[in-house]
Amino acid sequence: MTTETSPRELAHPPRDAIRLEGVLHALSDPMRLRVVCELATAQDDLSCSYFDLPVTKSTTTHHFRVLRESGVIRQVYRGTAKMNGLRRGDLDAQFPGLLDSVLAAAAHQEQRDR
Amino acid sequence: MTTETSPRELAHPPRDAIRLEGVLHALSDPMRLRVVCELATAQDDLSCSYFDLPVTKSTTTHHFRVLRESGVIRQVYRGTAKMNGLRRGDLDAQFPGLLDSVLAAAAHQEQRDR
Repeated sequence: MTTETSPRELAHPPRDAIRLEGVLHALSDPMRLRVVCELATAQDDLSCSYFDLPVTKSTTTHHFRVLRESGVIRQVYRGTAKMNGLRRGDLDAQFPGLLDSVLAAAAHQEQRDR
Repeated sequence: MTTETSPRELAHPPRDAIRLEGVLHALSDPMRLRVVCELATAQDDLSCSYFDLPVTKSTTTHHFRVLRESGVIRQVYRGTAKMNGLRRGDLDAQFPGLLDSVLAAAAHQEQRDR
């Protein structure tokens, strides 16, 4: 028995290590913001391959890693797929109202862009 | 008479050109977030030199430019000083509640960090 993290287990910051600057940075990219908006409306976790982003696979992987390492999403392996879920409870506890206001702002902006 | 902008007049995005991603990026840096929090509580515009940031003068100038170009602050010359004010009305109109939730989150985080 060891305390090492299995390579199949991805590192996540605990709730109280989630930093505002990191969350804002994670949300400041259009692709990452799009992923977060989709996860916010999803009923369940979504695999990385569910998202058809107009960027390379390695860039997609990078975006998901930024989201995970900043504490915005939780990633777990299910078989060979990485499943993604929004850490809504943790974000709401750390920064009440922040995620909702960003999601509302993104929805307003999308509406205006049409 | 020309339509050229005077070099003493700094370029600002109009309200409806302010983008969410740009605002979040501007706010994602600890120094810039600190400037925004101070401007939010100030009664009046503040000069760049008012802020004693632990970075070089050119980095400070860069941070203020990012804030201005993203639409977060308005900068005007008063004599030789650049004066800075938060574009609260424009931000609240574009993204209702966003600025307040970021300011509240920053205050919560600062409290926790103590």
